Amino acid sequence: MQARPAKWWGWGFEDRSLPLESKPALFALLRQVLELPDADLLPVPDVDRIRLPPTRFSDTDLAEFRKMVGEEGIAASDRDRLTHGVGRSYRDLVRLRLGPIPPPPDLVLFPEADGEVQRILEFCSEREVRVIPYGGGTSVVGGLEVVEPTHPHVTLDLRRMRQMLAVDEASLLVTAQAGIRGPLLEEELAAHRLTTGHFPQSFEFSTLGGWIASRSSGAMSNRYGKIEDIVAGLRLIAPSGVYDVSSRPHRSMGPDLLGLAMGSEGAFGVITQATIRVHRSPEARAFESIQFRSFHDGLESLRAMAQDGVPPHLAYLMDEDETRLAIAAEGSAARAAGGLLLVAYEGPRKSVRDDVAVARKYCSAGSPIGAGPAERWFQERYDGPYLRDSMIDHRILMDTAETATVWSNLERLYEAVKKALLAGIWGTGVQGLVGCHVSHVYPEGASLYFTFFARQKRGEELAQYDAVKSAVTRGILDNGGHLSHHHGVGVEHAKYLREAIGDDAWRLLRSLKRTLDPKGIMNPGKVYAMGA
Amino acid sequence: MQARPAKWWGWGFEDRSLPLESKPALFALLRQVLELPDADLLPVPDVDRIRLPPTRFSDTDLAEFRKMVGEEGIAASDRDRLTHGVGRSYRDLVRLRLGPIPPPPDLVLFPEADGEVQRILEFCSEREVRVIPYGGGTSVVGGLEVVEPTHPHVTLDLRRMRQMLAVDEASLLVTAQAGIRGPLLEEELAAHRLTTGHFPQSFEFSTLGGWIASRSSGAMSNRYGKIEDIVAGLRLIAPSGVYDVSSRPHRSMGPDLLGLAMGSEGAFGVITQATIRVHRSPEARAFESIQFRSFHDGLESLRAMAQDGVPPHLAYLMDEDETRLAIAAEGSAARAAGGLLLVAYEGPRKSVRDDVAVARKYCSAGSPIGAGPAERWFQERYDGPYLRDSMIDHRILMDTAETATVWSNLERLYEAVKKALLAGIWGTGVQGLVGCHVSHVYPEGASLYFTFFARQKRGEELAQYDAVKSAVTRGILDNGGHLSHHHGVGVEHAKYLREAIGDDAWRLLRSLKRTLDPKGIMNPGKVYAMGA
Repeated sequence: MQARPAKWWGWGFEDRSLPLESKPALFALLRQVLELPDADLLPVPDVDRIRLPPTRFSDTDLAEFRKMVGEEGIAASDRDRLTHGVGRSYRDLVRLRLGPIPPPPDLVLFPEADGEVQRILEFCSEREVRVIPYGGGTSVVGGLEVVEPTHPHVTLDLRRMRQMLAVDEASLLVTAQAGIRGPLLEEELAAHRLTTGHFPQSFEFSTLGGWIASRSSGAMSNRYGKIEDIVAGLRLIAPSGVYDVSSRPHRSMGPDLLGLAMGSEGAFGVITQATIRVHRSPEARAFESIQFRSFHDGLESLRAMAQDGVPPHLAYLMDEDETRLAIAAEGSAARAAGGLLLVAYEGPRKSVRDDVAVARKYCSAGSPIGAGPAERWFQERYDGPYLRDSMIDHRILMDTAETATVWSNLERLYEAVKKALLAGIWGTGVQGLVGCHVSHVYPEGASLYFTFFARQKRGEELAQYDAVKSAVTRGILDNGGHLSHHHGVGVEHAKYLREAIGDDAWRLLRSLKRTLDPKGIMNPGKVYAMGA
Repeated sequence: MQARPAKWWGWGFEDRSLPLESKPALFALLRQVLELPDADLLPVPDVDRIRLPPTRFSDTDLAEFRKMVGEEGIAASDRDRLTHGVGRSYRDLVRLRLGPIPPPPDLVLFPEADGEVQRILEFCSEREVRVIPYGGGTSVVGGLEVVEPTHPHVTLDLRRMRQMLAVDEASLLVTAQAGIRGPLLEEELAAHRLTTGHFPQSFEFSTLGGWIASRSSGAMSNRYGKIEDIVAGLRLIAPSGVYDVSSRPHRSMGPDLLGLAMGSEGAFGVITQATIRVHRSPEARAFESIQFRSFHDGLESLRAMAQDGVPPHLAYLMDEDETRLAIAAEGSAARAAGGLLLVAYEGPRKSVRDDVAVARKYCSAGSPIGAGPAERWFQERYDGPYLRDSMIDHRILMDTAETATVWSNLERLYEAVKKALLAGIWGTGVQGLVGCHVSHVYPEGASLYFTFFARQKRGEELAQYDAVKSAVTRGILDNGGHLSHHHGVGVEHAKYLREAIGDDAWRLLRSLKRTLDPKGIMNPGKVYAMGA
């Protein structure tokens, strides 16, 4: 159904790659700091040699599923099962290359309509079959993983549910099926001169339903809002019922059920459609880049803008080490000092010019260095995950960890997590490099997004990753950071959720899960850790 | 504990009133349209003659409660019980004057600390005693009413829980106990040059906890947000546990439990403290008033401002009939034509001047008539409920109904509800008058706030009110309006909630209620109708 085939083993389109060799200064920097050995590449295995356990569904079962979704709506090939059982986390990509291959679903279904989803859930409830909703497959927290291999699993890929259902131009609201991907949604909206303004890094592949299920944030979220600000209503089909919930315009009609569905990560049910706020397509875009003497100075400028109600639509403030990496990626060997802030604005032509002037004023502690760096960042904003594949080729552990906290705790958290990450990496006996940026700002606080690099430990790649991931997560939780700002809980963070939200809140979530999904068929192990 | 005593039978302070006679043009208009008889006043009865059933708590019970909250924290006098068993709806005020007196709680408790609230809930859970949380007592939807008179009730008045707990100036967040009233909260904040910006009409009496429990909206909500936008976190003490929930800064950590507590109206538990976003006190305020030829023209201007991201901080657009009432209240006999829009802005001196210029530009379909009307409205914004008491003196049924919908449905809903209201009033055999204003605007829609007047039917005051209230609620629900925009559900709307949110969502709410409050002791009959 995708005209342009996707890689089974890495990020994005098969015909697109971004070799580290194309960024020689960055490559040299990493080789030097991480003490990489020469020419020691990690190969991509032959997909045809990967053996999966056979599907556990009988021909009778398959015939039943065929009745629900038709011949077009069912896939049981090894390749389909393999690609649907993993997301795009570092852990996923390493397992695809080195094994063990994660247990795959027994079947992939492609429903086309709400009624089909309902029938699938009914059937699966009766048979205790586990159901994993699948949007774009870009989860970096293990949101698509089979974690109860004792039970048969179906993965519900929503790609055929991609219709626009309603456009209310007067109210700037549109309703679409949840399986619609970013580019198709924007294409349909562009015909009405509208946009969602929601552009997460996974935009080219991820879906409306996936954005909502994982509480995603786009690059221009300071203008257009996080997905929770964008969604006005949705339909959640759960084993216990069909929930049409909405919260916009504002109302006072008891507790908010929409907030329960957002962030449910498939563990409550399947989000099949949503109504979202849209905006008239912006006339213009303007950029500026500001060099600060320190990360601290940049943070203070961002805080002032956020608290005065004028946050840059895109705000991307890098600390010294990330600035250094960014400069190297642009081909310069210059050493960075301090922090680099990239800002961008969208809107009427005159207004974005004024916005840039306002940003310069608030950033008087730094020096404006022109649109260039911000504009380049914007043009290359979907490239990062392609580069990660090349880093894995070069046996580099590269991953990210993101969190958020209040301004009064931000620098303390930043220092503590950076320290914990480096200590975690050093603890595995290798050198590391850690950069950090702020990309979402609020009146009360901001996000922190760490990108870290280490030399892979051959033969212990997953154990090494576990050690580093534990170190950073402990560093975050022990210093008042959120478990995640916008990647979600999934399997990766599920074991920490109870600690993060408290015993009573955690029990309430478990109880909600039992109410919505009494037999526990929906995406087990995600959000709610098994037996935690 | 209140230095300035409050009326037991009407709105606000005992020493303050606003006679209809002080607004002769308005009085004349109402007399004429409603065909009021002369000098036929509804008296206020002698409070000492009101007989309440004795408390059902034994001396042993009272001694137990005394152990929990001390001698200072307990009140069982008839006056305390009477005033705590009613809010300030038209239905409440008519019952206080004419009877039947609503069944009062058996006891009023004034806890001072979270531990006391927990002990009270434990004791009440064991004994199946019902618990009604009480903030400022200003509910207009029956949120404080005893509806299960088969069980003993305690009302938990939180007025002693009014401490500021933390001020984080760097993050613009403050934490306070939930029983703090608007004026004290603002006084404490003013010492730090901060403000919440939350000024609902009940501001002088209502509490932080009450605002949250009822999802309240302030007059300047387009600048400062609805209470849900303001709250960053809170503590809910429920029979099932203590929930410290928060959602700011943004996070992706599973479903949002904060949204469940907001709007729970005491039916899940007691909100004992909250952390809220605050703002630096504004330097200046600016006003403008714009006369439109029609309500429609005013709506279109507001829609454009909301959708371009520049809604007036205060936006108050009256339809023709409400404009006529407002003009009469100001002492003029001039007939209104069209709609009057009042706007106000808060912020830096230069910025509010610019804001007014922007508003004038967007409102070019109307004529600016100066700051006067908007400024007067602002100065008198807490007066309306005082005037209502005088209308009741004059045997006028005066009440409000509020809703919201998307822009594409707004004018249809407006016409339909107005028609339904007038038909409802005429159906009771009297003349009526209905005004409407928009006071909260969003990119996707707006609120509609109807104020209606009719001659009371002597001897059938409550039956007449039931008929009119049913008519307007049906008009709202049958035409796609929200059951409430910011007044809440309470008892008054509980029987409609299932229809308004759908069977499955309603069952989910019921199930949540059972989880949080397994014995059903918390504010029974509010939000969740008995046996619905």
